[in-house]
Amino acid sequence: MKIRIGIAGYGNIGKGVEKAILQNPDMELTAVFVRPGKDPKNYATATPGVIVCSSDDAESMRNKIDVVVLCVGSAKDLPEWGPRFAKIFNTVDSYDTHAKVSEYLESMDKAAVNTAAVISAGWDPGIFSVFKLMSGAILPDGADYTFWGRGVSQGHSEAIRRVEGVKNAVQYTVPYEDAVREVRSGTNPRLTARQKMLRECYVAAYENADLEKIENEIKNIPYYFADYNTVVNFITEEELLKNHSKMPHAGFVFRSGNTGENKHIMEFSLKLDSNPEFTASVLVAYARAAYRLSKEGSFGAKTVLDVPLTYLSPRDRDVLIKELL
Amino acid sequence: MKIRIGIAGYGNIGKGVEKAILQNPDMELTAVFVRPGKDPKNYATATPGVIVCSSDDAESMRNKIDVVVLCVGSAKDLPEWGPRFAKIFNTVDSYDTHAKVSEYLESMDKAAVNTAAVISAGWDPGIFSVFKLMSGAILPDGADYTFWGRGVSQGHSEAIRRVEGVKNAVQYTVPYEDAVREVRSGTNPRLTARQKMLRECYVAAYENADLEKIENEIKNIPYYFADYNTVVNFITEEELLKNHSKMPHAGFVFRSGNTGENKHIMEFSLKLDSNPEFTASVLVAYARAAYRLSKEGSFGAKTVLDVPLTYLSPRDRDVLIKELL
Repeated sequence: MKIRIGIAGYGNIGKGVEKAILQNPDMELTAVFVRPGKDPKNYATATPGVIVCSSDDAESMRNKIDVVVLCVGSAKDLPEWGPRFAKIFNTVDSYDTHAKVSEYLESMDKAAVNTAAVISAGWDPGIFSVFKLMSGAILPDGADYTFWGRGVSQGHSEAIRRVEGVKNAVQYTVPYEDAVREVRSGTNPRLTARQKMLRECYVAAYENADLEKIENEIKNIPYYFADYNTVVNFITEEELLKNHSKMPHAGFVFRSGNTGENKHIMEFSLKLDSNPEFTASVLVAYARAAYRLSKEGSFGAKTVLDVPLTYLSPRDRDVLIKELL
Repeated sequence: MKIRIGIAGYGNIGKGVEKAILQNPDMELTAVFVRPGKDPKNYATATPGVIVCSSDDAESMRNKIDVVVLCVGSAKDLPEWGPRFAKIFNTVDSYDTHAKVSEYLESMDKAAVNTAAVISAGWDPGIFSVFKLMSGAILPDGADYTFWGRGVSQGHSEAIRRVEGVKNAVQYTVPYEDAVREVRSGTNPRLTARQKMLRECYVAAYENADLEKIENEIKNIPYYFADYNTVVNFITEEELLKNHSKMPHAGFVFRSGNTGENKHIMEFSLKLDSNPEFTASVLVAYARAAYRLSKEGSFGAKTVLDVPLTYLSPRDRDVLIKELL
């Protein structure tokens, strides 16, 4: 019996989840939930036989789905969609508003009374968090650094798109090479967010929009832009679609620590052709974990720091031990 | 109340554990167990007030120690010391004979009836295994590669020292740069062990020893050298001690995987000034986990793949979530 997956939100990540499911023979896609008011008939899934319905109809799918992968945005949608779905289904999401994770965790924990809800299971937060926890516990006398880019940040692009007068936008996170070099040399420099990376924005505005106001508004969005150097380039939507529609990303976490006079370096890096497809692949692995947690009665909200690692793999524990240890 | 640690075996790793404990304020070193027949008076620990006693006296320390870190060799000692200590104490070790891990796990599981025994918690097997599990689950359509070096392999050095006529020896594992480059390009090449790394040996022989015979014998040691290109350099013991007594190591695991037409690369790398001190630091983090597992009544043998990640850190779960997610 396969794990029956539902996808809530059928954008780039949702479509990536559908692709990832095809690579995991222990899973199948059962349903796609779209925003209320959208016509399900307008959505053609790549997988045949998938039910497309409004998120308002989630309750009717209660017994047909094992885990719902929540693929809607963190800023406005997840705080509402998350608890609503977690009341009915096991869920997994990539909630990524760092400053509000504890609050979101609490609201998901309240909702997930008879389900398992794994939150913030992308790459950052997500597997970068796993690496930071491990490397910090192993080398307590040290410092870690996270660098993102060069790549497109969906969250930041989305934040720009919400600014009044913006038609479309793409944001590249670009690490400063000097900062990267300094960190890799193991000198443990003190770097602010602003010294580590630049936020490079390509924005297509509506005709007659106030560009100066848009630029100013973007640069002051809290969490997303206010703490960074931000460059805003206004271009046409045609240019934007032609030159900036791929969604690559990259990043690394670096920890340098000492044991007395000896220095040790741990580094975890990613280089992704498609950020949403990779994030989707992480979500799908944690969907398997959510399913297993619920099977053993381990309900409530969990993070990637709580999930037993063996639950991520379709293979049996004894096989994993034989092959990986 | 601090976690009271015992160290069994006071060689390079044991001494590294003692150093690591000083970096972890939630732990204290209580006792060091040495091989029966050795005189405890000959051991001067760096930490004042530590009891040094024979491993035969382990039972008498039952109520004075929370976790014993087993720092004896995998080949001959751990299969006997492991279950003996796990019957009395929570334990952690870095058992590393890949081919026999399942067998060792079973014997530890039988012994650890009222204790938690975390096995194979070094870096390979150990945290490399964690990375392989995660990256394989996230990118099922892919291949992974492990490279070791440049660094000293204790096991290989030891194997050379057993050859007749050899007074002392150090072996460096040296990855071939071409192979590393090819792997990092993401082309998923097929590489044999011989194509991936060179084994570089520095050997001090006894006077009048037959050097040609020694070289030939080393190159044909099964598993350790027969499957690799091996270079043997004869030097004086003075040179060996002067230039080759540090124990650096390095290595990385690389996974390249696809989601349809998009390629993704995940890499985890280590660069260590002291292999035994880093291994000791991993062991100490997992000693904390063993303690917590036993506190919650989760007894039996565990691996790094089973341990909940939050158990590695001295910090509370909610703090970790706030800071890392």
